[in-house]
This record gives sequence, C-alpha cells and structure tokens, in this order.
Amino acid sequence: MTLPLSQIRAGVIGAGFIGPVHIEALKRLGIQVTAVCGSTASARAVAERFGIPEVFGDYDYAALIASPSVDVVHITSPNRQHFAQALAVLRAGKHCVCEKPLAMNPRETAALVKAAAKAGVVFAVNYNVRFYPAVLQLRAMIARGDLGEIIHVNGSYMQDWLLKDTDYNWRLLAEEGGALRAIADIGTHWLDTASFVLSSPVTRLLADLSTFHQQRRRPIAEVKTFSKAGAKTRFASYDVDTEDFASVLLAFGNGAHGNLGVSQVAAGRKNCIRLEIYGSKQSAWWCSENPDVLHFGRRDAANATAFRACAEFGDASGFTDYPGGHVEGFPDSFKMLYRAIYADIARGKPSAEPLYATAADGHAEVQLCEAILKSHRAQRWVSLPPTSP
Amino acid sequence: MTLPLSQIRAGVIGAGFIGPVHIEALKRLGIQVTAVCGSTASARAVAERFGIPEVFGDYDYAALIASPSVDVVHITSPNRQHFAQALAVLRAGKHCVCEKPLAMNPRETAALVKAAAKAGVVFAVNYNVRFYPAVLQLRAMIARGDLGEIIHVNGSYMQDWLLKDTDYNWRLLAEEGGALRAIADIGTHWLDTASFVLSSPVTRLLADLSTFHQQRRRPIAEVKTFSKAGAKTRFASYDVDTEDFASVLLAFGNGAHGNLGVSQVAAGRKNCIRLEIYGSKQSAWWCSENPDVLHFGRRDAANATAFRACAEFGDASGFTDYPGGHVEGFPDSFKMLYRAIYADIARGKPSAEPLYATAADGHAEVQLCEAILKSHRAQRWVSLPPTSP
Amino acid sequence: MTLPLSQIRAGVIGAGFIGPVHIEALKRLGIQVTAVCGSTASARAVAERFGIPEVFGDYDYAALIASPSVDVVHITSPNRQHFAQALAVLRAGKHCVCEKPLAMNPRETAALVKAAAKAGVVFAVNYNVRFYPAVLQLRAMIARGDLGEIIHVNGSYMQDWLLKDTDYNWRLLAEEGGALRAIADIGTHWLDTASFVLSSPVTRLLADLSTFHQQRRRPIAEVKTFSKAGAKTRFASYDVDTEDFASVLLAFGNGAHGNLGVSQVAAGRKNCIRLEIYGSKQSAWWCSENPDVLHFGRRDAANATAFRACAEFGDASGFTDYPGGHVEGFPDSFKMLYRAIYADIARGKPSAEPLYATAADGHAEVQLCEAILKSHRAQRWVSLPPTSP
Amino acid sequence: MTLPLSQIRAGVIGAGFIGPVHIEALKRLGIQVTAVCGSTASARAVAERFGIPEVFGDYDYAALIASPSVDVVHITSPNRQHFAQALAVLRAGKHCVCEKPLAMNPRETAALVKAAAKAGVVFAVNYNVRFYPAVLQLRAMIARGDLGEIIHVNGSYMQDWLLKDTDYNWRLLAEEGGALRAIADIGTHWLDTASFVLSSPVTRLLADLSTFHQQRRRPIAEVKTFSKAGAKTRFASYDVDTEDFASVLLAFGNGAHGNLGVSQVAAGRKNCIRLEIYGSKQSAWWCSENPDVLHFGRRDAANATAFRACAEFGDASGFTDYPGGHVEGFPDSFKMLYRAIYADIARGKPSAEPLYATAADGHAEVQLCEAILKSHRAQRWVSLPPTSP
Repeated sequence: MTLPLSQIRAGVIGAGFIGPVHIEALKRLGIQVTAVCGSTASARAVAERFGIPEVFGDYDYAALIASPSVDVVHITSPNRQHFAQALAVLRAGKHCVCEKPLAMNPRETAALVKAAAKAGVVFAVNYNVRFYPAVLQLRAMIARGDLGEIIHVNGSYMQDWLLKDTDYNWRLLAEEGGALRAIADIGTHWLDTASFVLSSPVTRLLADLSTFHQQRRRPIAEVKTFSKAGAKTRFASYDVDTEDFASVLLAFGNGAHGNLGVSQVAAGRKNCIRLEIYGSKQSAWWCSENPDVLHFGRRDAANATAFRACAEFGDASGFTDYPGGHVEGFPDSFKMLYRAIYADIARGKPSAEPLYATAADGHAEVQLCEAILKSHRAQRWVSLPPTSP
Repeated sequence: MTLPLSQIRAGVIGAGFIGPVHIEALKRLGIQVTAVCGSTASARAVAERFGIPEVFGDYDYAALIASPSVDVVHITSPNRQHFAQALAVLRAGKHCVCEKPLAMNPRETAALVKAAAKAGVVFAVNYNVRFYPAVLQLRAMIARGDLGEIIHVNGSYMQDWLLKDTDYNWRLLAEEGGALRAIADIGTHWLDTASFVLSSPVTRLLADLSTFHQQRRRPIAEVKTFSKAGAKTRFASYDVDTEDFASVLLAFGNGAHGNLGVSQVAAGRKNCIRLEIYGSKQSAWWCSENPDVLHFGRRDAANATAFRACAEFGDASGFTDYPGGHVEGFPDSFKMLYRAIYADIARGKPSAEPLYATAADGHAEVQLCEAILKSHRAQRWVSLPPTSP
Repeated sequence: MTLPLSQIRAGVIGAGFIGPVHIEALKRLGIQVTAVCGSTASARAVAERFGIPEVFGDYDYAALIASPSVDVVHITSPNRQHFAQALAVLRAGKHCVCEKPLAMNPRETAALVKAAAKAGVVFAVNYNVRFYPAVLQLRAMIARGDLGEIIHVNGSYMQDWLLKDTDYNWRLLAEEGGALRAIADIGTHWLDTASFVLSSPVTRLLADLSTFHQQRRRPIAEVKTFSKAGAKTRFASYDVDTEDFASVLLAFGNGAHGNLGVSQVAAGRKNCIRLEIYGSKQSAWWCSENPDVLHFGRRDAANATAFRACAEFGDASGFTDYPGGHVEGFPDSFKMLYRAIYADIARGKPSAEPLYATAADGHAEVQLCEAILKSHRAQRWVSLPPTSP
Repeated sequence: MTLPLSQIRAGVIGAGFIGPVHIEALKRLGIQVTAVCGSTASARAVAERFGIPEVFGDYDYAALIASPSVDVVHITSPNRQHFAQALAVLRAGKHCVCEKPLAMNPRETAALVKAAAKAGVVFAVNYNVRFYPAVLQLRAMIARGDLGEIIHVNGSYMQDWLLKDTDYNWRLLAEEGGALRAIADIGTHWLDTASFVLSSPVTRLLADLSTFHQQRRRPIAEVKTFSKAGAKTRFASYDVDTEDFASVLLAFGNGAHGNLGVSQVAAGRKNCIRLEIYGSKQSAWWCSENPDVLHFGRRDAANATAFRACAEFGDASGFTDYPGGHVEGFPDSFKMLYRAIYADIARGKPSAEPLYATAADGHAEVQLCEAILKSHRAQRWVSLPPTSP
C-alpha cells in the first residue's frame, strides 16, 4: 500500500542555510514538516517561518528522532555529527535523509551502510545534483547507449566565495570539516554526478591539491556560509591546511577517462558545475549555471540543445513539473530528489535500484575522498577498493 | 501589527495547471493553504496531493470565499470568471490574488479597481514576471538613472506550443478566451513587465496582428494547456479568429520607443521573454530562458553579466533566497510575488506603491489590449487613455 | 573561356576605411589590384602599403576608369559620387563593383539599372552580408523548403558608435549622406539580407523613425568613421536631421511578416545583425557577432547549432575556405562576395541569377528607403512598387 | 632603415592545406609572394591561383631557397622535413617562418636554435594562436598584473575530425608524424599559448595519454587533412600507436597550476581551444570558436565581456584592423602573426623580445612534448629542463 505524500511527516535536524532548503522542497511536495531541531533560537525562528508545530531547541536531536510525529528524519547538521545522528535514526527504525558527506571517514560510512541494510528503511544521502532533470536524462541516455561508448569525461566544479584571504568559513579548518575541503565540499558532488550518469564507479585516480592562501585572515566573530567580510571587520591570521583547488585525473569502471578541476578561488564562477561527456556516437554537455538545457555535440550533424520537458527529455519526465522554457533551477533539484525518496518511503522500503544516493553511494564518495588525499600525498596514481563495502 | 506568514490562510479557486503553481509557492513561504475549489474530481486530487483540509467541488467558489478558514482568495479559474469571482471576494472583504487578465474588458476592470479601493483590502493581479530578481533589479536601476535616459526598448515573447494546426487549446477560440490571444495570453506579460521596469505607461501604439493558421484541426476530446496531439488523435476542423503572432510599436510616457514581437508559432522558442532596454548611459538585456542573469551593454567599457544575488543585484536582495549560481527560475518568481503580496496582507492593507500589479495595473493592461485590437483593425497609431481609471 | 582570377585586374576608387577592405579581399583571391584613386596622400599611402602600381591622386577617378591596366572598377567613394562614377565605368564598358547605396535616389538607381543592362558587363552592389556562409546556407534551405512556409521574420541591426552627442560622422548630416541615416547605413543591409534569404521582396511596410540626439556637438576637425572623441576635443553644436534609430514592420511577397529594429545608439552592440526566421517546419537564427554558426529552432526536437563547413552547411561549400571551428568573419564575407562576382567576370558576363546584389537589387533597396521615409512622414503603411524598374 | 612590406618577397615551401593559408595572409599585408614549391602539380595550381611568378615543382625546395627573388622562406611541408629545410634557409642567410613543430626532437630543435642565432636573421615558428587579439591582450594584462597573481589555468583543445575509426590522416601513424599525435598536433598550440599569456614556462607536468581506437581502418587511397570517408570507400585495418586524447597537469614557473585536456575524438568540438585563467584579482576566459571576445570573471563585480577593438583591447590595437563587432577569425591570426614577423624583417633583424614564437620557443615546445611522453610512460610527474637550450 502506498501512502499519499501529504500523510508522511518529516522532521529536520539543522536550522542553518540548508535546513530550510529541505523544508521548502518538502512542503512543495505536500509532505508535512512536523518538527525542527537546532539551536533554540534558530529552531524557533524556522518553526515560526514555516508553521512547524514541534520545536526541539538546544540541539536535542534525540528528542526529534523519538517524536511520534516524525516518520522521516532529515540530517542537515555539521558534518561531524552526521554519523551519530544517522545511526540514531536507523536505530529508531525511521527513514533518513542525510546531507553529504555521509560521515567523516570510511569506517563510519561502512558502519552506516550495514546499519541501513539491517534497519530496512529508506536511507538517502542528499546528492541533489543527480536530480536536475538534465542529469537524470543524461544517465538514461548513456545507459541506453545513446552516446555510444564513453571515451572521456571533462569537467569542473568552480566557485569564488573563498577567493579572498578574508573570506571565512568553518570548512577552511581541517579540524572542523576534515582534511579535504574543495574536494569534500563540492568536488564530491561532481564525482557522484559523474559516476551516476555513467552508471560506473571511479576505479583509479591521480590528484593534485593546492592551497593558494596558505595563510588567511579570520573575522573575529561567527560567520555564515556564503556571507562576506565588510570594510570594518577585524581579523586574526591563521594557517590553512585544506586545499583551495585541485585537479583529479580519473579512470572509470567502464573504461572512460576523466579530468576534473575543482576550485573555490575561481573569480566569476559562482556555483559552476560543468560536465562534458564524450562518447563514440555523440557527446553531451551540461552546466549548472544554465541547468535547464542539455547540449549534444555531434560529428556529422549539427550540435543540439534540448530544453527540459521537451524533446529528448522524455526519460526525466517524472521529475519535472513545469513546461519547457519555464526554467526550473537549484531549489527544484531538492524537490525532485525528495519526490524519488518519498516515493520509496510511501511504499515503506527502498526500491531495488534507487536513483537517489544510498548509504553505499555515500560510503563510496568518502572512500573516493580518502583516495584523493592519498594520491596527492604520494604524488601517484591510486586504485579504489571495489565498490561494495 | 504584522502577522507571521504561517498564520495567514489562503484558499485557491482553480485546480488546473496554474492553481498548483500558486499552492506550491504559498507553501514554500510557510503560508497555510486551507481550501481549494474546482471540479469535484480535480479539487479532491489537488487537496490530497498537498494536504489541503477544505475541498469545494462542483466549482462552488462562493462557498470557498465564505469559508471562515480563508483569509485570502487566489483566483486561477478561466478568464471569463475572473470578474464575478473577484467581485465576490472583494464583497466578502477578503484579500484577493487574481490571475491575469484581471477581467474580459475595461468596463469590468474599471469596476474592480473601484471595488478594490472601496474594500481597502490587498488586491493583486498575478503578473509574476515582475518578480524575477533580474526584473526587480532592472526597475530599481532605471528608476535611479543607472541606464541614463531610456532611448528605446526592443523585445519579444515567443513560444511554439501552438505552431501546428493540430495544437489545440481553448484560448484559440475568441468566444472562450477573448478576441486577442497571443497578445492577451503572453504579450500582456511583456507589456506589463516593460511598463514596470520603465516605471512608465504606454501612451501610444501601432499593432499588426496575424493568424497563420486561419483554419486549425481540433482533437475530438478535452485538452490541457501545453499538452500535444499524438499519432492516433482524431480531428475536426474549425476557423480561428485569434492572432498567432503580432508586432506592436510603442511609445512610453517617458519618451522611450518600443518594439515588441509576440508569437505562439515560433519553432524552438519554448517560453522566451526577451527584453532589451537601451539607455543613454548603458543598456540592459534579460531573457526568461536564462533568467538568473542580467546583461549590461556599454559603449566605452566591456559589456557585463551579473548573477542574481551577487554584485549589482543589491536592489532585489529581499526577493531572492539562494546564493548566486544556484539558479532560481520560474516557480521562484511566484514565490517572490507572494512574498511581496503577503507582506502587505500581513500588515492588513496595501502599501502605498506596491511592486506587485494592482487592480489599476490589471485594468491598464486590459485597456492596452483593447487599444492593440483597435490599432490593428484601423491600421493606424492609437493613443491610450490616461492611466488612472 | 574562363580567365584565371590572377589575370583579372581591379582598380579601386576610394582610399578611406572601406577601400582597403576591398583590396585585401581581392588580393586573398589572387586578383591583381593595379590601380587606386583618392586624395593624393591617401591614394599614395594605400598604394605603397599594398604594392599597387598605378596611383590616381586628386580624386581623378576618370583616369583610373580609363586606365588600360584596369578591367574592373570598385567604387568606395562617398555615397553622392556613386552615380556619376558608376555611370562612367559602365560607359567605359568595364565591370563594376559599387559600394552601397547604389546611388542617392530611385531616379539615379533606375538609370544605372538600364545602363548596366545596356553595357552587358558584370555590375554588383557591395552587399557583403549575403556572403557570410550562414546567410548563403539559409537562403538555399529556405528556397528548398527546409524551414517550411515562412511565417514571420524578426531582427535588428544595432550599433553604438553614435551613442554620444559628441560622436561625429558625415553620415549624421542629411546633406552629406541623405535624409535617412541608420536605415540607409545599416538597415538597408538587414533588408537586403532578409529579402535575399527569403528570395522575396518587401511589398508593404510601416516605419517609425526617431532622433534621440536632436542636437549634437561636432569636433572642430576632420573625423574618420568609427573613431571617437578624446578629452581635449573642442566642439560646435549642430542640429541633426537624420534618425538615430527606427522600427520597421514589413510584409514580404511570400506572405511572411517582418519586424526590424535599427539603432546606432544601442550601447554594447558593436555591429550586431540579428536575423530570426520562423517557418512552419523550423526556425533559423543568425547573428553577425558570432557569424560562423547557424541556429535552428524546432518544435518537436532539440534546437540545433551548425558550424560553417560542417553538417548542414553543404549549400555554402563553394563560399568557405577554412574547416569548421576555424572561424571566418567579416573580412571573409568580402572575399566570398568577390569570389562570386569575379567568377562572372572571369566568364565575361553576368550569370542568369547571380547571388550577389545586382543593379536591380541596389535599386530596390533605394526604393525601399524612400518608402520607409514616406511611411514615417505619413505615419501609415506604404506599398512598394513592383520590383522590376 | 625599414622597408615597406610591399617590397619584401616571400617564397613558400608546401602547397597543401596550410601553404595557401600563409600565402593569403601575406598578400593581405601587401607582401609579395614570389615563389612556391611542392609537388609539380600542386605548386603549379597554387601559383596560378595566386599569380605567383616562380614555381618550384618536384619538391625542389633548395632551388626556392636559392632564388634571388626570395627574401623570406615559409616552411609548410610535412613535419619530418622542417629540420633540413630550416637549416638550409638559415645557411642561405634568409629569414625563415617555419610551421610547428619546429622539428622532430630536441636535438634537432637545439641545433636550429644555435643556427638561427648564428645567422642573425628573423626566425619564427608559426604558432598563430598567439596572434588572436584576445590572446595578445590577455598576455599584456597578465604581465601588467591586471589579473593579480595567477592561481590556476584550466583549458582544453578539442576536435572531432578523428572520432571515427575510418577517419584517416598521416598524423595517426607514429612513423609519419611522431610518437605523439593529439599533443603534438594541437596540444602544443594550447601549451605555447598558455606559456605565452603567462610569460612563464612549464616546469613540471604529469600526463595521461589514451588511444580510444587502438585499431583503425584506412581508406585505400590518399587522404587530405580534414576530409572524411564516404559510403563507398574501401578500408584496410591498421594498429594505431598515437594518442587520441590526453590529460596533462602542469606547474608553471610563476607558481600557477594548470590542467589541460586534449582530444581529437570529441564529438561536436570542431576546433575548440578553451583557455581559462584564474587570478587573485579576476579571471579571464577565451575560446577559439568565438575568438573575438574575451570574458572576465569577477568576485565582487559583474563578469565582463570585451569585444576586440573596443574597451579593454587597447594593448592589442596594433594587431587588429576591423572595428569591434566586425568579427576577425582564424585567417586573421595568420595575418597578424606575419605583421609582427615582417616588422622585424623590414628592420632586417629580430627584435629583442618578439611576440612571435622564436626558435627557442619552438625548441621548448618539442622538449615539452618529450616530457609529456616520458611522464605518461613512467606514470609520474616529470620536471622540465631549464628553458634556455
């Protein structure tokens, strides 16, 4: 039996930037958001803004998980807390949507893969980029052979919000966000997306990581993600032990080669995911800064540009709502991700091959990050372990 | 005193394509959607999908308006019903958001202007294009003189969903949608947007309307907006008395000249609003198919491209939620429109100079359409009446 | 018998901006440039620069025409001199390539049509835009029906080099360049191109002309086309009696409607010819600022982008030299124009239906300009005389 | 004393695809082309086409070099012949313009560096990409610090003309073109351009080369560069020992990191050089498929697009002829390259720091290619020898 989405009740841990993004997307789908948890002040503010009945302040996530009004728990807290919270959700036998990264290291993520399998619930990692209709369409086309054999993949994920030495965010500090930064924060999105569209894991890689600002200056006060320093801000210097930008060469299980550039110091790139896939029949190019179109490169015919919801987007038709030319964007990718996840939740269990990232996918990404760090330190190619944990 | 948005309760008349667009946007803002009205089947379906408690089937809009659970009524029914329904809402002393066109003729719209003024409530016409942040930004810049004196405006609104003679929609028939079609359906959006960004009304115009398919073939069955005919569909021929495309030359109150092309038979244009404004200091260009950027044309410096939420979008900062590069699109324009409208509703009355289209603006657009028809029939320039009704 | 191009000898009247453009293109084709005429100083400079043996100073064009070393005469002098010079070339029985406009009024151009027919030589008007391979390709495709029935054409020709009131050029003065300026200088290129690609003349039009700077300031000194005023320049005021920008609505002989915007005060548009042709099967779009590609708009398939020299440019293959992606641009359009003209010259007489603009085409354009002026003054639609003079 | 260009006489060795490209560009500048050498048939054809007086058939390049009518020799023969021919030109004391690669290995190129220095003549390697005005402008801006400190460079050079296993060209065979193909044919252009704009050599690199078609089929007949197989062509299989595509990670002398992708099997990329340079003040992006514009990426201001010959192209003003918006393309880059080279020839000797690639630059590129091969074979990072030979 399948529940209507409007009878499923979600609780959200985290009331910062990304928590409300989840809430908004859930409400668009008619899903009830019944509980929120965070600092007392911000959880209250979010609850009032969205009309959420239950508020769990003081970061009391255990109480939210235990609430009888909550069927599904969204984890949008800082990275270090994902593991414990996800484990608690699974132990409570509830469905879970966890922000990426799944956890801080492969040991933790392997444990979560096991726990999720044991719990038998729906467990998803929030890799939203998969749910741009263009990305879903690409995956279906490649699986069907529309691009032919995949020869090579070229792309990048670039941003500029950490360009200046006065730009500050907790992710800059290894002790807060982990030893990898540009890779773990955005590179992992590109890598997950590339493996997803190719339906093939990375098997081998070589990485070159660099820190342009080896010393930065930190404003003496708390700073929100994406906010910037003003003229009167006072600063303290600190050493940076995470990378500003990186290049990663890749080999995929299907024989394709890959070349990825990642940067958080790329002036003029606001949030630019570029993915170019070159096949033996045709190529396909997509960019997140104009996400509603998909470009095809052809050798013996004109190149093509397809609009979402129109010709050549038929495979993604279940994950798009507005007619072609009525642009869907970043927030819509969350809506479509939750449409896929909650279709499984409505049936009560994961489907056999879900489109959304599972615990295993989240684990694979953390393994990949480890391999990138290892390759960079050793300055040589590194092979990935087989994908099943 | 200002209410939190989550305590305001909206009811929506209309359960077709555009009703759910309203509902989704309202829910994103935390506004309660408490009632829906339509055919019994579709109202029930929409209610179940979004978890809406009150359902008014059999098109019983009077009951929805009368419901004590409804503070604000959204009218998304067919054009011919807007007048009676809007009047009923006003007579009930409730706030009203009416889809465009406000009504079928200037007599009706003038009556609504009066009724809205008398009721003292918030009354908005759903011209959502104004609320793309790029459009709001443009308006602020032009008002401040950033473009200098406005010399001329060039643009178009083009679609291709009525290109084939087998494409069918009720708007094709004058008796259903009115004597104007391409102009009344989409041209009016461009015209409202142009006047909005210029802060100046159209004062004089010349129109050339054309019907490419003077006879079309209609599928023998009911058809939804934006759906297309299949191979096995059976057809009946009928004469078309509404225009497929049009050109309109314009003069604005501020002395600027305008040139507008409108078409619903423009292959490859899905929903393409192009607006180019040429000023004595610089020009600005915007296109709805890539809505998150604004281009500036300069004579003695490089041209510029600004991203939403970044440099040079400061004036629209209250009407955008996601960081630059995380594209906002068509559905977001509804969200931002309702943010503006519901800010007034939260205060209990219209602000002095609202950004959203008022009854007077809706009236002006209907007058403009009448003038376009008149100009076309007379094949000459026509002056507009002064803007106050 | 056909001569090799390297045995044909051209003389060029005019040593300003456009004369050397002709010379360069001729030399690329291996055609000999044997004579140049202009002011004594500039003719000498051009001759030395290009190694041209005969120099006719003091504007002695009659001597150049009479030279036994000259088989073909290119006229690149100011507009007012085209008529007398072209007539002299024809009377000398030599081939002639005349810059546009062909002459100052339809009486003159009609006389040249007759004189050219009588002389039996090759006579071409220098409408180079026809010879972008994309434009040639479009014409062939439309003639073959690849776009279906043409519904409407939308486009513009915009520049910004006269945006400021201190920008000066002799074309600004009606007594120098004629009563029309933006239309006669650049609009005529768009109109010729549109008629060329449609293989159909304009039959009816309505024009709206405007002068933004009704008074301008002129630097007290001689000024070259495209040069700009500096900080120390001194100025004298003068009244402007030619239009800065215009809109023209059009009907073509094949039933298509047209909408043209023209402006020389459009900040950020350097030399932007935009041509969008909407057909019942597909549409096609081209822009001179990225001239090597042709875009196709489609209703039920993805839109397409074709590169010159690649798929879907087969009809223009005789008029392009470099492989796809090796961009050909503005100077190449002159080369290809002369390739067509000199193929006829090499055979000794005009072909039956030349691709280049003939005297009749040049005459039609001058008639069109007259009709535009008449329509603007009368503020009404005007019909064109039949195309044969 | 400086000669007028029209008094300098060039002879061209090679009458295939690229020889005429040289000839055309020379003639545009008014330089005399007095001799051509190649197979007897093709040399005669080229001579007739361009009106070249001296023809040296049967590949008799020694005779061309010895001709008293030749001041400068252009070498456009197959790669293997560059060394012997260049040496012969230098021994004759004549100026030389040699196509890239300068020769087949660093031993040969080092010898040419010495011979050129000893001869004291002008010696240039034909790296034409440097002479797109956008590239010249970039170099000047970076040298002046307009981009700040250069952080990283990301780019690619992609084509699709060897995508199919039936596409044939002599470059596919190591014995004909050398062990490297995609890198040596096009990658070297990107590498030269990157070092040129950064004014900094590559110091360290890691390469990954791949051959997608390890076996190809060759048409049984002679094949021209850029031509394609038809339906009736008959084929013979052969093994391919040169790379179809490659990734190269780079470190430059100025501390910048680089990431280059190269492919000749990239469907839809006709001749796409992409260069993105990220600096601490701003970034700059250029693409050869739309070469007349330069994009700037900015963190705290709008991004910018500059047109050639307009604002922000001031540093390249000596190497561009047409006004902004009148697109210059690929053939114009040759014209501008020769303008620089022949300015030195007109003075009789090389300038101190020429913009064009010298023998030393050509030598550095061949060294770079060797290092790429070495890195690929060893699967590790490789350091470059210091740049002076």
